[in-house]
Amino acid sequence: MYRPEIKVIDCTIRDGGLMNKSRFSIDLVRKVYKAVCDSGVDIVELGYRNSKEMFSVKEYGAWRFCDEENLRKVTEGIKTKDTKTKIAIMQDSHKAVAEDILPKKDSVVDVIRVATYVKDIDKAIKLANNATEKGYEATINIMSISQTIEWELDEALQQIENETKVMAVYIVDSFGALYSDDINFYVDKYKKFLKTKEIGVHAHNHQQLGFANTITGIIRGANYLDGTLYGFGRAAGNCPLELLVSFLKNPKFNIMPLLKVIGKDILPLTKEITWGYSIPYMITGILNLHPKIAMELMDLPDDSKEKYDYLDFYKKITADEIE
Amino acid sequence: MYRPEIKVIDCTIRDGGLMNKSRFSIDLVRKVYKAVCDSGVDIVELGYRNSKEMFSVKEYGAWRFCDEENLRKVTEGIKTKDTKTKIAIMQDSHKAVAEDILPKKDSVVDVIRVATYVKDIDKAIKLANNATEKGYEATINIMSISQTIEWELDEALQQIENETKVMAVYIVDSFGALYSDDINFYVDKYKKFLKTKEIGVHAHNHQQLGFANTITGIIRGANYLDGTLYGFGRAAGNCPLELLVSFLKNPKFNIMPLLKVIGKDILPLTKEITWGYSIPYMITGILNLHPKIAMELMDLPDDSKEKYDYLDFYKKITADEIE
Repeated sequence: MYRPEIKVIDCTIRDGGLMNKSRFSIDLVRKVYKAVCDSGVDIVELGYRNSKEMFSVKEYGAWRFCDEENLRKVTEGIKTKDTKTKIAIMQDSHKAVAEDILPKKDSVVDVIRVATYVKDIDKAIKLANNATEKGYEATINIMSISQTIEWELDEALQQIENETKVMAVYIVDSFGALYSDDINFYVDKYKKFLKTKEIGVHAHNHQQLGFANTITGIIRGANYLDGTLYGFGRAAGNCPLELLVSFLKNPKFNIMPLLKVIGKDILPLTKEITWGYSIPYMITGILNLHPKIAMELMDLPDDSKEKYDYLDFYKKITADEIE
Repeated sequence: MYRPEIKVIDCTIRDGGLMNKSRFSIDLVRKVYKAVCDSGVDIVELGYRNSKEMFSVKEYGAWRFCDEENLRKVTEGIKTKDTKTKIAIMQDSHKAVAEDILPKKDSVVDVIRVATYVKDIDKAIKLANNATEKGYEATINIMSISQTIEWELDEALQQIENETKVMAVYIVDSFGALYSDDINFYVDKYKKFLKTKEIGVHAHNHQQLGFANTITGIIRGANYLDGTLYGFGRAAGNCPLELLVSFLKNPKFNIMPLLKVIGKDILPLTKEITWGYSIPYMITGILNLHPKIAMELMDLPDDSKEKYDYLDFYKKITADEIE
């Protein structure tokens, strides 16, 4: 598959940061940045620029805020290829403020991605417009898509089309709940409303469909594709970047720097942080639920009785009687 | 997705046995058997019936041979549901003999699955016909499909159609090399030649596409679907049975016994046996190669320098100059 319009976005540090409160060393982030640049991937997302009023700077690491000074420490002295890899940061629509974004000329950032729930779409549009007005490219990433009410999503898409200049709007499968038919459904819907924007796919791996759903999106017409090194990301993680780059036949991509940094710098993280397919995540995925409860189970000590009693976990979740 | 024709086959013990020379305790196999029966899965494959001339009984465990006596120890006293789970064993076309199959009336086995390379198709047909003549149902599972030469595969399919009474013929993606478009290609080809047989999919997970490719097969018309508990199987493993059962909406399936046995009996195996997605397997998958070389790398001790030098591994494999 090779389509020149396709853009690949690495979000290892940003999504992986949801597993360790964004506490990565400058050295690690530099290594990831360098590998992604060397691989010819189009965009690298280095973290969030969320509000220090909302997140304690004591509790959260530098990559929850992405101060310009820290970004410069990462990028300084690293040459990118002719196909320059752009730098992205993310703002959460309900946890970030417009004032934290400098004019583009004062920043190393190229792209601002605004993550939002449908209910916060007006906040997201405000932040996205703030970004484009200040000179950045922007995207809006609609999270928890599998739990949206259809007419509200339609309205949000129409608003984005009418009221913003974002380059792309994402289908974000936060719960890893979507099957290929669902991806087709959402891509078709996005196409219907978004006549002037590209469509993005950000998939999670709770049902081992992160990569497959990204391929489904590509075939259906999505051109903005997120991946992370070795799938590092929240809960079961994301579409593995190395698989995505290998699938895409665009000769500008080089998988070798990715293989190297995975073996040397990403794999060692698994000693402290557990991500990837696991039964608790699979259960929240098939039930279309936030992985939070599964992450709590996974965090129990290994000798805890409950930790591997998956039947009990499943029964507890499905026993909630709601009417 | 619910289609009454669909049959789900658990091959945990058979494919998992490729990772430990089929050395499982009777107790473990009983637990797997019971869980699969309780879940309403259609067929459970308990191992190979390969030749004791070809495999040393000292080196290999009971489930490489599946003597009737051992099968009875597993099934004895376990009640199956009304939707009786059938028992399958596998014969390798080049490593098994017809004489090892008793008349059906003397066996607890219901289904004999013959695994074969295209080049051994005549041997496979002989074994499959031996099985059906002795009263069993049979399938032929064409391995390493991604390395077959097209006219040879076509001819093999035509022979199977003309010369056998097997219920199903499988697309076996031994190397985990296929994408969804490839699955569609092979299902369409099988349909063209096999007017009186069902089509099966046995997928491997080297590119995290085991489950996704099985879904693609279902949508395209395949009705025989293999899975294993927690994906346990050779190298990166297989399509996880729990995901498949959850995807299929047939009310006869019950995921709960599967969740229980995974947590209690399958997960502990990971202490001794490593399967699932890993970069070496991913590399052989994208290169359409047998995972053997990756399995050797994975078997190196953890403190070996080479083990995590994925770039070096990739370079070595791709450096072979062949003309």
